[in-house]
Amino acid sequence: MEKGQKGIFITVIGASDCSAEETRLAEEVGRELARRGATLICGGLEGVMEAACRGATSQGGVTIGILPGDSREDANPYIRIPIVTGMGYTRNAIVAKSGQAVIAIGGSYGTLSEIAYALQNNIPVISLGTWSLARGGVVDSSIIVAQNPVDAVEKALGLIRKS
Amino acid sequence: MEKGQKGIFITVIGASDCSAEETRLAEEVGRELARRGATLICGGLEGVMEAACRGATSQGGVTIGILPGDSREDANPYIRIPIVTGMGYTRNAIVAKSGQAVIAIGGSYGTLSEIAYALQNNIPVISLGTWSLARGGVVDSSIIVAQNPVDAVEKALGLIRKS
Amino acid sequence: MEKGQKGIFITVIGASDCSAEETRLAEEVGRELARRGATLICGGLEGVMEAACRGATSQGGVTIGILPGDSREDANPYIRIPIVTGMGYTRNAIVAKSGQAVIAIGGSYGTLSEIAYALQNNIPVISLGTWSLARGGVVDSSIIVAQNPVDAVEKALGLIRKS
Amino acid sequence: MEKGQKGIFITVIGASDCSAEETRLAEEVGRELARRGATLICGGLEGVMEAACRGATSQGGVTIGILPGDSREDANPYIRIPIVTGMGYTRNAIVAKSGQAVIAIGGSYGTLSEIAYALQNNIPVISLGTWSLARGGVVDSSIIVAQNPVDAVEKALGLIRKS
Repeated sequence: MEKGQKGIFITVIGASDCSAEETRLAEEVGRELARRGATLICGGLEGVMEAACRGATSQGGVTIGILPGDSREDANPYIRIPIVTGMGYTRNAIVAKSGQAVIAIGGSYGTLSEIAYALQNNIPVISLGTWSLARGGVVDSSIIVAQNPVDAVEKALGLIRKS
Repeated sequence: MEKGQKGIFITVIGASDCSAEETRLAEEVGRELARRGATLICGGLEGVMEAACRGATSQGGVTIGILPGDSREDANPYIRIPIVTGMGYTRNAIVAKSGQAVIAIGGSYGTLSEIAYALQNNIPVISLGTWSLARGGVVDSSIIVAQNPVDAVEKALGLIRKS
Repeated sequence: MEKGQKGIFITVIGASDCSAEETRLAEEVGRELARRGATLICGGLEGVMEAACRGATSQGGVTIGILPGDSREDANPYIRIPIVTGMGYTRNAIVAKSGQAVIAIGGSYGTLSEIAYALQNNIPVISLGTWSLARGGVVDSSIIVAQNPVDAVEKALGLIRKS
Repeated sequence: MEKGQKGIFITVIGASDCSAEETRLAEEVGRELARRGATLICGGLEGVMEAACRGATSQGGVTIGILPGDSREDANPYIRIPIVTGMGYTRNAIVAKSGQAVIAIGGSYGTLSEIAYALQNNIPVISLGTWSLARGGVVDSSIIVAQNPVDAVEKALGLIRKS
């Protein structure tokens, strides 16, 4: 790879404890990201994170895990590049900011914190069944709803290219 | 103060750029917290944070500002105890976790990240016009809606005492 | 306390596992800081931190603990104001930066990281038996050696007032 | 790459403002790491970091930059994988912990904080003209002195394999 070519980085977020359907969605998102040549960033643990990494790895993709703990051994087995933060869930800000777009699948309060950091930093957030937000009775339309994993990846890549 | 007596710590969150009504609410929340003897924790900057601190200071309350930058000079003039993090808005996790309850007034995406961290850590969140959340069409009822500043403070203190 | 009066904040650092002599030094530093009206900041745990807080509390001083874990219950019993970071020893940067001067008593590698952050931010570091540094065979004279606890506190306060 | 194969990660640290000799050493360390198949982790900025990345890139190596700011554009032009922390120099803990060994070339107080975090986490530190440490008149022998860049890389790789 030549100087200055950094590639495309997409963050995938979701709970470490997730449903079978969310697992299926995450794995397909991971596969599609790898097919398009995007590098997958995630929190490095189980559930949605592991499923997305498994999908990406099956297509030869590169996966990065921003780990909360002090040990690279905490990474799920599909993480190629473990980043060891040792700062617990405060690392969620880094997971969000290191992607050029974020795809959120289902999700817990940790996922919500990552969505908040992405939106604060003008990073597009694509939803596959994640949180929706409202204030004063008005729905926040910043989160873009995707119909399926391929649609989510296309929307993510399309929003990066426009920016 | 004797050994082991730590007092009560309530976090107040909201945007640095806020409406006149939010300013009024924040100031009254600050006054009421100080009257009840609670220490006020916030992000240390302007807007909702400064108004709440102004209210607390007017009643002799103690105020703590968890600052994003590298200088204590960034604190609003009503912060008595500046904590200098130098870690930008990644410090939002600390703002949330250092309170025993969180009162959210209006708010931006930064406020949303603090709400997420509080809920993740089982810290009660009281709303005065802040975000509401839903997933899969179901509203998340974790955020407790208050009718006014005094009600918000009473709910916050009541939830701590129960826990 | 009036608007703008923030008082003086001195950080005391040292290992959670320390010698009897270091415990004695830390307790006397804490007492002297409280007598001079300075607020004591530390990492909130045992050893040097607890001894310094015990000394400060005995003289009515205020103590702040920047805790690594997710629970205020981790604080030593002499912490009046617990700050809950949940970010492990990455919180050392905050311990260092939140003081206007740092007094280092003995110390481990964690203490060394705090000294490094203080020096990077032009915060004076006073030594009671802590690390000394050299590069290229030349001793770094940035760390100021004190003769005893009272001398350490006087040097710390003197350096703040000059700045 | 198959499941579970994560490769070897070596962190290179040093000042963003460095001497011509340090630049030369860093570039050679980067080249040698890439020749041995190790991935290079650094703080992502100029000086020693950029020189090491330039060397690694010239040999087809992979480079990771743990950036202090909020923008991937801050990365030096030889960073292939930018991690965006937005947490300033508090990110130094992550730079240190993400490597399996650390090679320190010259260095500033920021470098010293990274050495401290590495030693605290039992990560070997190899010196090419970096800090030396002492306590109570006794030199700390934890930092391993290398004779030249190739020796530094060999020592780093050797210490990982033993652990």
